[in-house]
Amino acid sequence: MTDIALLLFDGVTALDAIGPYEVLWRIPGARVRFVAAEPGPCRTDNGLLQLVATTGFADVTAADVLVVPGGFGTRRLVDDEPTLRWIRDLHAKTMWTTSVCTGALLLGAAGLLDGRDAATHWRARELLAKYGARPVDDRVVERGRLITCAGVSAGIDMALTLAARLADEMTARAIQLAIEYDPQPPYDSGSLASAGPAVLERLEEMTRQ
Amino acid sequence: MTDIALLLFDGVTALDAIGPYEVLWRIPGARVRFVAAEPGPCRTDNGLLQLVATTGFADVTAADVLVVPGGFGTRRLVDDEPTLRWIRDLHAKTMWTTSVCTGALLLGAAGLLDGRDAATHWRARELLAKYGARPVDDRVVERGRLITCAGVSAGIDMALTLAARLADEMTARAIQLAIEYDPQPPYDSGSLASAGPAVLERLEEMTRQ
Repeated sequence: MTDIALLLFDGVTALDAIGPYEVLWRIPGARVRFVAAEPGPCRTDNGLLQLVATTGFADVTAADVLVVPGGFGTRRLVDDEPTLRWIRDLHAKTMWTTSVCTGALLLGAAGLLDGRDAATHWRARELLAKYGARPVDDRVVERGRLITCAGVSAGIDMALTLAARLADEMTARAIQLAIEYDPQPPYDSGSLASAGPAVLERLEEMTRQ
Repeated sequence: MTDIALLLFDGVTALDAIGPYEVLWRIPGARVRFVAAEPGPCRTDNGLLQLVATTGFADVTAADVLVVPGGFGTRRLVDDEPTLRWIRDLHAKTMWTTSVCTGALLLGAAGLLDGRDAATHWRARELLAKYGARPVDDRVVERGRLITCAGVSAGIDMALTLAARLADEMTARAIQLAIEYDPQPPYDSGSLASAGPAVLERLEEMTRQ
């Protein structure tokens, strides 16, 4: 069995967690557990949705895979020693330790990224560098048994990469077909480079509202 | 304000719901409500995760946008008159009625797709035709104020299309940048045509396990 622990917390971005989950649970023999400091509902970044953690830190002392999603809640957790200790303790035993988006800040704050290449949300690259990481402008960054990736939706790409490592390429491809991941975004504005300054300005305007 | 109702039910596929949600809540002035027959936690298709519906059918009698996700739970709901009535009643008042994946089966069972082009998960096309719809092999199918889309991950593409209709193209592009939706799947197996017979066979083998 492949034991997968997916961290939840108040202020998580839902798609950061659900993208990898929707891929990883489909690996034959995988068990995905949603883990928070204590079991119970966790509110997403906007407070609109609750995702329920079925297990607490105390009950998950080892896993083959750790997935750390991002979200505004990470800003508080970078100073939360119980969370960082849990990440550190799990990482000592994982085959793969992974993050999506600003989940990388938690890996960084836990001391796992010092001097290492890592990806995060484009907005958080400077912040990530404060934890000693070297922010890389790639969608999925695999270095040894650490896999980090870019913002929010990048967790799907990361998880398909991971599925091939945990199982094999045919299994990863079969999962891609199962979730019909044949992306056709109507626009080409998914990266800072492709979006350009006018789109960035519109986003900043929306964020200020 | 744009009032968005997102249906939840036991047996929903999490990404079907979370993909559109992660896009649509970011539209300025949008309010997203997760609605189930009764408020409370809904188990996803594999039972591993619970998404919490904050509102019941009785409290949501109108919305600007209805989003109906898919999942194995739809197989039961196609015969559930309270759910179909709620979909029909809401559709009478929406600006846009949408589905992701096998959510189209519920729109079909509610009588909304008779004689109309519609998309669904590739596996459910024949089933969709039983409800009088004409299954179309496109990722996002917009016909009048009905938008249906392909399986699971296609909800992200659908929601970006919808965001441009509800707001404008710049806003949709800004949301695409916010969720860093610059997809780079490691493989090209996201559609039946691109996956080929060996991948399909692997998926069938995994599904039988």
